[in-house]
Amino acid sequence: MDKITSRKNPLIAHIRKLSASREYRSLCGEYVCEGATLLDEARASSAEITSVIWCGSAGAVVPGIPSQYEVPEDLYSFISPLKNSPGPLFTVKIQEPDKEAKVDSAVVLENIQDPGNIGTVLRTANAFGIGSVVLTGSCADLYNSKTVRASMGAIFRQRTDLVDLPDLRRFVDSNALTLYAAVLSDKAEDIRNIDCSGCAFAIGNEGSGLSRELLGLCDNEVIIPMSPSAESLNAAVAAGILMWEVKRREK
Amino acid sequence: MDKITSRKNPLIAHIRKLSASREYRSLCGEYVCEGATLLDEARASSAEITSVIWCGSAGAVVPGIPSQYEVPEDLYSFISPLKNSPGPLFTVKIQEPDKEAKVDSAVVLENIQDPGNIGTVLRTANAFGIGSVVLTGSCADLYNSKTVRASMGAIFRQRTDLVDLPDLRRFVDSNALTLYAAVLSDKAEDIRNIDCSGCAFAIGNEGSGLSRELLGLCDNEVIIPMSPSAESLNAAVAAGILMWEVKRREK
Repeated sequence: MDKITSRKNPLIAHIRKLSASREYRSLCGEYVCEGATLLDEARASSAEITSVIWCGSAGAVVPGIPSQYEVPEDLYSFISPLKNSPGPLFTVKIQEPDKEAKVDSAVVLENIQDPGNIGTVLRTANAFGIGSVVLTGSCADLYNSKTVRASMGAIFRQRTDLVDLPDLRRFVDSNALTLYAAVLSDKAEDIRNIDCSGCAFAIGNEGSGLSRELLGLCDNEVIIPMSPSAESLNAAVAAGILMWEVKRREK
Repeated sequence: MDKITSRKNPLIAHIRKLSASREYRSLCGEYVCEGATLLDEARASSAEITSVIWCGSAGAVVPGIPSQYEVPEDLYSFISPLKNSPGPLFTVKIQEPDKEAKVDSAVVLENIQDPGNIGTVLRTANAFGIGSVVLTGSCADLYNSKTVRASMGAIFRQRTDLVDLPDLRRFVDSNALTLYAAVLSDKAEDIRNIDCSGCAFAIGNEGSGLSRELLGLCDNEVIIPMSPSAESLNAAVAAGILMWEVKRREK
């Protein structure tokens, strides 16, 4: 396996920039992942792995990926977003969804800032067979290392759609979905009373909820009933329960 | 309001130690919280607030709490676990559960290391009226600032029990609960087919699952069915769905 020893190596510089900049990731259509388990998940999926960087002599070349390098530990620390990671680190092509393929269910996240929550939603959506996780507004980046880590490999398998708010209604209609706003209003329909087939559930920012614009696009409102003393659920938990409601009614 | 200006002030030293050390928190029976919203939640609950530290002149004395101080911004930063927090910071007495009071439902967390997950479970348990969140094994501390923050005030309202593994069976029996191990086994019962009244659901560490010892204490096993390509759910999401199953069947 070839070795890289210089911080000025172009691949090293490229990986540093991919880790640091959302714009650069978007421009290159590529992102950074880390860990042996995640590499196994990526290889078992249709993800296109573009390079693998092994830390020290820990690496064993995996078949089918031409661009693999060994770097000394201090150089590995220089590129890894984690402390004391055993590696490997690898880069993956961003996969665009097939816009022609229809989805029969979706969860829509608006302005969710916490990458851990977004990764957790991907993981749950994948577990429950949800058609798409739709990101709108100013969500944390799907390809942030924290999102990727929290997704536990679902990032390689779960369809996601990045949709500007003005296009959200078109997305919903072209997939023949009913768009529900998850809100904390007594007037909203109890999730237990909704036929959850063909639904998209929109979840807003924890602090400020769904925007007025998004609320205006929705067909209806839904609530997960709670004790009177409680105020709200964590966004990933609320999304998880709504997705479970889709899954549990499946025949 | 009195002012504190020295890092050597005994209350400042006490708060620093409370933030830093789980042992000291346990010894003193006290923990640290931060933020105006959380202070409102604490005041609206039965929590015993032992002191409030206001940052700069931002504070307005709240009634009913004798020990309130103003500190300059640099001293506030010295004691705050957050960066650039507007405060206030306050200390709260750890409340012991009334062991005589029976619970009709519980979630049992074993070896859950992430304080955010534990705080999120508290928040969901409170939202769904779960009798107790039971911590066993080596979980992250309930009174860690990250747990407290993620609980969004549920820490003041939700009953919790810290139970050593050998005492778990006694806890379950004395509350006449059925203890289910949440596992990823095809032989486990589908959650949809279980009568969820009087249940305690045990959730294990994400990496290693439930310990053999805990599995040995359980009456039965339960699974949340998932797509074949998915491996598991985030612990707080899995706990959230099991607790929702208790809540949603309520009449």
